[in-house]
Amino acid sequence: MSYDPNNLFARIGRGDIPCIRVYEDADTLAFMDIMPQADGHTLVIPKRAGENLLDTALSDVMAAMQTTQRVAKAVQHAFNAPGLIISQFNGEAAGQTIFHLHFHIIPAYPASRLQHHARTKADPAKLEQHAASIRMSLQTLSSGSPT
Amino acid sequence: MSYDPNNLFARIGRGDIPCIRVYEDADTLAFMDIMPQADGHTLVIPKRAGENLLDTALSDVMAAMQTTQRVAKAVQHAFNAPGLIISQFNGEAAGQTIFHLHFHIIPAYPASRLQHHARTKADPAKLEQHAASIRMSLQTLSSGSPT
Repeated sequence: MSYDPNNLFARIGRGDIPCIRVYEDADTLAFMDIMPQADGHTLVIPKRAGENLLDTALSDVMAAMQTTQRVAKAVQHAFNAPGLIISQFNGEAAGQTIFHLHFHIIPAYPASRLQHHARTKADPAKLEQHAASIRMSLQTLSSGSPT
Repeated sequence: MSYDPNNLFARIGRGDIPCIRVYEDADTLAFMDIMPQADGHTLVIPKRAGENLLDTALSDVMAAMQTTQRVAKAVQHAFNAPGLIISQFNGEAAGQTIFHLHFHIIPAYPASRLQHHARTKADPAKLEQHAASIRMSLQTLSSGSPT
């Protein structure tokens, strides 16, 4: 499959479509998944084109991983998550639905807090609150304040 | 939890315990998962200490991701896998069982080829064959031969 420059995440990366952003730099963007598998489910994309891990330039993969580590720390901090799952799907057979490289950051909570069976849109106001918590944790962690 | 320098993957990284290796460089090691979730299931670790994505030095995370991309391409090539899942677990709550940072590379096949319910040890001879296929694909891909 050839890369479609108008896929959803490419448009979000260009700012053509809004997202609930938690972090952005020249090369990458992190934003809330609107169909979260758990509270705090965040996505990280490189801004440049690439369908998946196999065809994306190493420099963009590296930039995305650097942001993934940074945001993962903030998600863990913001939600006091006991666990975090990082996942990245390549190809429809692997469950990829948007064909622009993205890393999932998914907090893992005790079973009672999981929403494994739902793939429903979250309340946008709730996502905004979650994003605000993560942005605050990014600031706290980068300023070296005690966590 | 503090990092245990004698965890299984630390010992594999030091060469104290054997593994079925597919790739190694100064900073990272890739080897077959002995309880594969699918044929070709490979693990990538940095050699230096780090329990998970949150506490591992960025340079080691980057090195591991570079190797993950390289080996993922080879796994896809060797197994002609229609999909690939990259996953990385942080904390027991997320399913982490060995507390040394590792990335899973798991081919995704049509449902008939999945072994989702099994967590059993694979036949070592079969794993050796799989590793040989991946090593051959690494050579093929790095020499620029047609794929």
